[in-house]
Formats: sequence, C-alpha cells, structure tokens
Amino acid sequence: MSLTPIEPDDIEALATGAWILGAGGGGNPYLARLNLRLLYEAGTRVSLLDPKALADDDPVAVVASVGAPLVGRERLSDPQLATRPLLALQDHLKGAFRAVMSVEVGGTNALQPLMVAAMTGLPVVDADSMGRAFPEAQMASFAIADLPMLPLALSDVRGSDVIIPRAANPGWMSRIARKALGEMGAVAATCRGPRTGREIKAYGILYSTTKAIRIGRAVHAARRRRDDPIAALVEAEAGVLLFRGKVLDISRRTTDSFLRGRARIEGAYGDRGSILEVEFQNEFAAAWRDGEVAVTTPDIICVLDSESGEAIGTEMIRYGQRVSVIVLPPPAIFLTTRGLAATGPRAFGYDFDYTTVLADQAKGLSVRGGPSEAR
Amino acid sequence: MSLTPIEPDDIEALATGAWILGAGGGGNPYLARLNLRLLYEAGTRVSLLDPKALADDDPVAVVASVGAPLVGRERLSDPQLATRPLLALQDHLKGAFRAVMSVEVGGTNALQPLMVAAMTGLPVVDADSMGRAFPEAQMASFAIADLPMLPLALSDVRGSDVIIPRAANPGWMSRIARKALGEMGAVAATCRGPRTGREIKAYGILYSTTKAIRIGRAVHAARRRRDDPIAALVEAEAGVLLFRGKVLDISRRTTDSFLRGRARIEGAYGDRGSILEVEFQNEFAAAWRDGEVAVTTPDIICVLDSESGEAIGTEMIRYGQRVSVIVLPPPAIFLTTRGLAATGPRAFGYDFDYTTVLADQAKGLSVRGGPSEAR
Repeated sequence: MSLTPIEPDDIEALATGAWILGAGGGGNPYLARLNLRLLYEAGTRVSLLDPKALADDDPVAVVASVGAPLVGRERLSDPQLATRPLLALQDHLKGAFRAVMSVEVGGTNALQPLMVAAMTGLPVVDADSMGRAFPEAQMASFAIADLPMLPLALSDVRGSDVIIPRAANPGWMSRIARKALGEMGAVAATCRGPRTGREIKAYGILYSTTKAIRIGRAVHAARRRRDDPIAALVEAEAGVLLFRGKVLDISRRTTDSFLRGRARIEGAYGDRGSILEVEFQNEFAAAWRDGEVAVTTPDIICVLDSESGEAIGTEMIRYGQRVSVIVLPPPAIFLTTRGLAATGPRAFGYDFDYTTVLADQAKGLSVRGGPSEAR
Repeated sequence: MSLTPIEPDDIEALATGAWILGAGGGGNPYLARLNLRLLYEAGTRVSLLDPKALADDDPVAVVASVGAPLVGRERLSDPQLATRPLLALQDHLKGAFRAVMSVEVGGTNALQPLMVAAMTGLPVVDADSMGRAFPEAQMASFAIADLPMLPLALSDVRGSDVIIPRAANPGWMSRIARKALGEMGAVAATCRGPRTGREIKAYGILYSTTKAIRIGRAVHAARRRRDDPIAALVEAEAGVLLFRGKVLDISRRTTDSFLRGRARIEGAYGDRGSILEVEFQNEFAAAWRDGEVAVTTPDIICVLDSESGEAIGTEMIRYGQRVSVIVLPPPAIFLTTRGLAATGPRAFGYDFDYTTVLADQAKGLSVRGGPSEAR
C-alpha cells in the first residue's frame, strides 16, 4: 500500500519531530499545526505517499514558506496562500502535479505540503530535499545533484504572484527572488523546481516525513511514560547526547536576512565545569566544547528543553533555559565531497572541516565521493 | 493589402519621427536603428500589419524596453534580448502570438517591435498604446480603458526572466516589477499585457507607426529640399510652432527613477524678449511663456534642433542649443475625462488643468467623456 492516511496524532508528532529536525531553524511548526487541526476538524484528510510508488515521470510540486522568520511570526501561516504558488506553477507549466512535497522537513516547512495537500487533494510525498532545515537553497540535495531549481513561483498574501522561469545561474535567481520577496513583504509561499518521480527517487531524502513523525512519537511516548524524552530520542535515532546545562548568555544579530549568533551553555551533571558554545546561521552550525570544535554542520545539532524534549529555536533560545544539546546523523548525501562543500562548515564561513561526534559519520569520512556514491 | 513591407528608408524615417513623438523622452532610437540596419543588411525584412486586419481573437505581444535611460546608453539595444520576454510569455501562455506591437511609438520603443519582428518573423501591428512616449504604464490607452496589464515578462541581459502573472493591483505589479528590474541591472526588455485584435482595434492608438514614419519623411524631405523642416512638420501634422530661441539654462535631477528638470529658453525671431520655460518628467510635461502656462501634457511638446528638425531629448538638452518648441496633437483618448486624469498635468503633480495651444483640442474640451466617446 503506497498511500498511508496521516492521522491527527501523526500531525502532532510531525510538528514535534520536524521542530527537532529544524536544528534550531525552519520556524516553529506551531501555527501550521493549528491550521491543520482546523482543516482536520472540518473533515479533511491528507495521505502520505511512498516515494518509491511514484512513476518516473510523475510531476511533483516542491513547496515551502520562505522569508524572514520574525515576519513569519506576525504574518500567520495560511493554507490558501501556501497553495497559490503551486496553482501558479501548474498554470505556468500547463500540467497538473501528481503530488506535493516539502523542500525541508525541518521546522514549519515539514507541514507546508500537508496544508497544500488539504487544499488540493494531492498526496504528500514522504521525502524532502534536506532531511532537516538549512538556511540556503543550494544546500538542498537536488541542488547538490545539480538539478535545476527553476521555475520558481512566489505568492504573497495580497494576491501577487511572481514566476522566475529562467535565470542566468542560481545566484542570480536568488538575488532577483530576494528583491521580489522583499517587496512582497519579506515572507511568501513558494513552489519551485518541480521534480519528477525519477529525480525524487534518485536524489530526494526519502521517508523523512515518516522519520519526523517517528521522532515526535518517541518524544511524546517518553513524556507519557514520564521517561527522559531526550534519552529515548537519542537511542531511537542513533544520535549522541553532546551536552547538558543552562544557557549562560546569547548574542543574536540579523545580517543579510539571516539570524546569526552564539549561545554559551554552562555544563551540568556530567558536563559540570565545561562550557559549550553553539553558533547559528538560522540553524545551529557548529559547537565548541571548552574552546575546541566538537561538532559541525551538516550534523543535525539540536538544542532541546531538558525536561520536555521540545526543540528550542535559535530565535527563542534565552538565558536560564535548561537545555540538552544532541546531535543526530545527517542524510548521507551531505557527507559526500559535494555535499560537504555545500553544507559543511566552510559553506557557513568557518575555516575548519567537518567534525562529528557520531561514530558512523566519522568512519564514513574516509570514503567520500559524488552524490551518487552516498546512495 | 493588410501587410506592407517596411523598407530601409522607412526605418530611417521611423527613427526620426519616433524620436520627435517621444516629446523629449522614450530614449534616442539611434542604437535600435543601427541594429535594424544590420538585420536588414543580413537580408531580414519586416512587415507592417494594418490593425484592422487583425482577427478579434488574434493574440498580440506588446513589447518595450524599460528602465533607466542613462543605463540604456551603456547597455546597448539588442534584438535577441528584445525578443526574450515575448518567448517567455509565449511559453507561459502556451500559445503563439500572431503579431507584435509597441507600448509607445515615442522614442526607441517604436523600433523595439521591429527588432522582435526581425527575430521572430511576426508582423508589426501599426499601432501602439500612447501615440507618443509617457513616463508611466498607467498612461497607456489600454490602462485608461481598464484592460489588464498582466502577465508581464521581464528579461535581462544575463539570461534571467521574471514573469508576474498576477498582482494585487497595478500599483503592486509596478512595485514588484521595479525591484526585480533594479536587481536585473536597471534595464530590461519586457512583454506585457498581451492584447487581442479586438482590444487593439477598440483601444489602441491606430496607425501610429505610419504616423511616425510620415513625420520622419516630412522632416527628411524638407532637409533634402533645404526647406525649414520644422515648418514642414508643423504644417503636415496640424501642429503649432510655440517658440523659437536659444537654451539659456537647464536643471536636471533623477528622482524616483524619473529624470525631472526644467529648461529655460530665450526667445529669438518673433519670440525675442520672451522666455519659455519647459518642465519635464522624462518627457516634456508643461511650458510657461513669460510665467504663464502655455501648454501641458498630454499635448505632445517637442523641442527640436531649429536647423535640422532633429528631436532633442530631455537628457541631452543643453545650454546654447538653437531650438524650436512645437506642439503636436495627442491621441483623442487622452483628452477624455479619464484620459486627462491619467495623463493631464495633475497626473504629473501640477496644480492646474490641461492647457493647449492647439485650436482643435481647445474646442474639444467641452465634450469630454469616457474612453469610448473619444473614438
């Protein structure tokens, strides 16, 4: 059976899991979750489609909400708006999409295709192109595999649509889209780089929606059992508990439409006497234990509330929070030579190489290659 | 016969006539003329199509070059680029255009559809939407008739295309397009608001290409006869010679991407002892004789070299030039109530009404009405 209904409980679990996979970024899925709850109360049901069930030439819409996270907190998530760029692209391409999927399973964009699916009746492909959240489009698996990221459709809340069918190169597409986005109010719904079933099966991050639901379920189940949700999560997902402690201070600045900054965490329990520093560019990018690099992107660095296991976003982390920093394994494509070039610490402006606390990842580093090798 | 071949001589005449109808704006057609000469030397021929020969549902592409005139003088006119937005819109609409026409017959945009025609083999409709040059899109006859000005396609020289298929309103379309245009390098080729044959026959400025060619021919013929080209032009086109003299001084500033300014002209011959002041916003908008408003937009106010009859652009007018200021009648639609609201002096920020030196126009003012009344 290639179609699985998404139950109301799955949506709650997806919201929790996607926020954890956001690695501090991607935006809190809270509002999208409320939207979906409303749509479900009105009788809508959304189904998850096994990507392997896609025909090679099935056209799939890739949707996301983009823009300034802070504006996104005032301009609320909206299923009608989320759907508009898909309709604009469908009209532009004069062909109907067979399914919808997310650019990134991390943060609120994990729920974006569910809202679109609820409005259109399309199934949601159980896949994305990041397996987490990343700050830039060229960090998507499809971009690393050199697939075209066009055409791009942008829709704003007032009713304006912009389509970029062609660009000199991805950089120019971003520059032009960013200016249009700014004028559209700094947040917009997008549908871009429609993918075929073949491309998704070859280069998508498969079963990432299921993974996010599974992560959310593990956390919820541990909470219900009054167990430690973080220990449960780390065990279930082959992660590592990097550090536990209390947020000491935090610096944050918005530059080039990224939220950048650094949090200092004072160790507790087994980490007493140590300091962990975590830097972010929308998402957590690298962490230093007592001044030594401990872990870097593309590893999924998550700062969680030590009690509830709930993710803490880079825009919300603050003094005094009791937090646990965990590291989850990234999709294999990001550990290839091309993947690391696009998503490793140097892509974030650091002058050092990928460093990991994940034993399997560390072993794998001796056999890097092109995107296809990792699959 | 609805198709007339455009001969090399016609292109020379069109360049001269269109520059005069530019009313100081629209950009010098010099470079587009050279491009067409090259295309003609390579054997290309372009035909002019009688707009009345269009079937009601014939789709027609409306093309223009847009952006900052000063950048346009560095980034040279280019037939390939001129054609790209038409191809982008054709691909977007999944339908082939039957013909191509100009947004404005004034300035270099009069020759834009000829370049596109040379590249595509389409005929050029003998019509435009301004009958002159105007600084803003809402001053087009199609906009005054409330026809949709979308979709809009913009193409830049690097190879990027942007399509705006839908906008909250025309103001938002302009705002978003202007930002994209800025990032594209401040000049772009456009194709927007495709028109049907029915719309062109009802609301286009018909036979304006022929008119521009006729004006150019009148000037060239007088030059060859060593007659006064300005007297010949004024007589042939029911115009008025407003003033002759020498440019005394000129102020110019670029604001909100418009070239604004004022020229003071010291009278000679019959105008000795008088001063004419002419203000412009890209195009000449109003003139004062000794402090009294003499003539305003939408009348076509042209500043010509007194010797050659060649038009002088608002970006090139300078101290010491011997000039003749003439006034040509505007298309009737601009003298309707709606037309004057969009193109009269108040639309340019002046606190006075339309004033004319053209006897027929002055008479017509008592019978203003909607766009259809003027036709």
